[in-house]
This record gives sequence, C-alpha cells and structure tokens, in this order.
Amino acid sequence: MNQRIGPVTARGQKTRQALLDAACEEFGTKGFYNASISSITRRAGVAQGTFYLYYRSKEEILRALVEHMNRSMRRTQSEAVQDASDRISAEIQGFRHFMRFALRHRSLYRVVMESQFVDPRIHRDYYQTLAERYARHLAKAQANGEIREGDPGTQAWALIGIAYFMGLRFPVWEEREPPDEVMDTLEDFITAALRPDPAAPSAEERPPG
Amino acid sequence: MNQRIGPVTARGQKTRQALLDAACEEFGTKGFYNASISSITRRAGVAQGTFYLYYRSKEEILRALVEHMNRSMRRTQSEAVQDASDRISAEIQGFRHFMRFALRHRSLYRVVMESQFVDPRIHRDYYQTLAERYARHLAKAQANGEIREGDPGTQAWALIGIAYFMGLRFPVWEEREPPDEVMDTLEDFITAALRPDPAAPSAEERPPG
Repeated sequence: MNQRIGPVTARGQKTRQALLDAACEEFGTKGFYNASISSITRRAGVAQGTFYLYYRSKEEILRALVEHMNRSMRRTQSEAVQDASDRISAEIQGFRHFMRFALRHRSLYRVVMESQFVDPRIHRDYYQTLAERYARHLAKAQANGEIREGDPGTQAWALIGIAYFMGLRFPVWEEREPPDEVMDTLEDFITAALRPDPAAPSAEERPPG
Repeated sequence: MNQRIGPVTARGQKTRQALLDAACEEFGTKGFYNASISSITRRAGVAQGTFYLYYRSKEEILRALVEHMNRSMRRTQSEAVQDASDRISAEIQGFRHFMRFALRHRSLYRVVMESQFVDPRIHRDYYQTLAERYARHLAKAQANGEIREGDPGTQAWALIGIAYFMGLRFPVWEEREPPDEVMDTLEDFITAALRPDPAAPSAEERPPG
C-alpha cells in the first residue's frame, strides 16, 4: 500500500479529492498514456507543483484512484444489498445496483480496466480483494443452504465476470442501464446458476466429515 | 475493415506472418505504448522499412492482430465443440478448450484487452462479432429445447464474461489451466444456468404465436 503524503488538513483533503476527480476525468477521457499531470492540475484548478505535495507520479495517483473505486464500490454494494432476504436476492439487487454505479462512474470503470497495462499488480489486487470478500459471502450462503455447493471463489469470479461484461456493454459503451429483457434473462441465469440443487443432500443431511 | 497492402506472394505472406508474430510478442510483453516499430522489425528479422510495405502504423498492425485472434479463436472453438451431443456439452467443452487456447496465446489475450485503450472500436467489434455468432448458436439451442429460454444475446455475454475472467485469472495471471475444483464448479454453474427449466412448457407444448 502507498505511504500517503501531503497535507491532512480539511483544505488538504479537499485538494486531494479535487486532484483525484480531475485525474479520473483525465485518464477516463484521454487514457493514461496521453494524460498529463499539468492537465490534471489545470482541471483541478491548482498549481502544477501542488500535485507533488500529494502524489509522486501519474502511476501513484492511478493506484490511489483504483483503491478509491474499490472502497466506494464495496461500500455502496454492501448498502444496496443489506435488506436482501437471502443470497440470491442479494446477488440480483447487487447486480442492478452495480449497473447504476457503473453508469455514474464510467471514467472510473475505464481507469480500473486500463490500470492492468500500467501496473498489473494494481489491477490484480483490485479483483483479488473483491473476489475474496465476495467468496466469503458465498461460502456463508452455501453453509446456510441458500445457494448450491461448489468452490465459492469460482462462483465469485464467474459472477464478477458477468457483471464486468454487462457493465462494459451497457453503462460504458452504450451509456445506459441494460434494458429490461437483458436484466430479466440475467436474473434468470444467475438464479438458476446459484439455486441449490433440490436433489442434493442439504448440509444437515450429509454425513459429517 | 482494413484495405490490405503489401506483397501477396508466398514470401510476402511469410513476412506478414513474421511481423504479426513479432508485434504480438512486442505488444504482449511491453504493452502497446512502449512498443516500437523498430523493435518489431528487429524481432521479425526484417529491415525497418519493410514494416511499411505491410502496415501503415502501429495501430494498423494492432487491428490486424485482433482480427487474427478473433478468426483463430472462432475456428479452433468450432473444431473443439463439433462433436458435442448438445449445447450444454458444447459449452463445457468449449470452455475447457478456451482455457488451453488462452494459455497458449497469453500475449494475444493481452493485446486484445489493451486494444480498447488504443481504439475502442477494435475491441468492441471483436466482442460484438463473437457475441453475435455465439447468440445464434444459443437461439438455435433454445428452439431445440436444449437450453433454457431467455434473450440469447444476454446468455452469450454472460458466458463470455465468465470465460474472460477465468482466462485472465488462470492462463494469463497464473500461467496455468484452472485446477480441477475450479473447472468442476464452473461446469456445475454453467450447466445449472443453461439447463431448461423442467417446469417450463417445451417449445412444442406452448400455444403458437
């Protein structure tokens, strides 16, 4: 993780946020390689030298942005699914919520995708953190008999893969939420993929060990 | 589509292929932005000027590589699944085959991913061509009652999303095929997601219209 530099006063926090927002806009529209620190500071309305009080390089602010995306997505996803009655409902609600999140954060989405070509570790850490937390929820749901058995990490990656492409296809490419027939088919697909097999013995019925 | 330039003799074909292989290696290891035409021609063992007999720019050879990936993947996938008895078996066989393909073509995989940041149309065309052909197979399988009903385009994109992330996670990142417990869970996930709902009326039983 980064050692954070720069002023920690309220005003410092505001400048840091302005730099992050400007970098997101700059990377999202021009791409990382064509982006420049002078253009980021211009967008943020601060002097060019100010950038270096907070970040050492373009790579460092990219890493900070990807970490920011990870935190804000996890937080809003948790809020979105907290009232779900079971794991499958949580998945469906979470999926719909993610589509709206991706639509509002199209630049951030692009920044995360591009990060793999700047520093593969940033991108890999992003998805591994996400998948590990996700797999813990799925493992718990398996233990409760809410979803079908299997390697929870693999189920998590499969669901992330579906969400990633659907986010790319509609929010990022077409700048809209997926139409109803797409959401209906996805709901059906995910529900069928996760619903416990009625023929399989439940956790209580299985012999221990 | 590109207008193809350059010699079409057997020797010309060989040089073109050498340039494509060299570009794939160069983009795959250094990334598109750090790659240079002089380094590509050096890897291919040809004079730098020769490059321009075949491609006008680094962007143009990137597009040619992505089209090449699309063709060779579609061809080998079709071959891999031609003996499958039904669509779900074809999906499982195709999935296993894709993992081996991704492992053998890790550079090409990376080149396709990166193309979206060079020219988003290249990348979008790639996936749209893939998804449309895929959806046609799924629509036919639905009509035959081999898989569950739904928007076939959405089913295609969901399956592509799963394959993409699994290819990224194991062949690209870990340089190996997915372990058995991952393949078992995926097989189960995909089978459950596609298996026709026994409660739904079959195509023959439904009233026409």
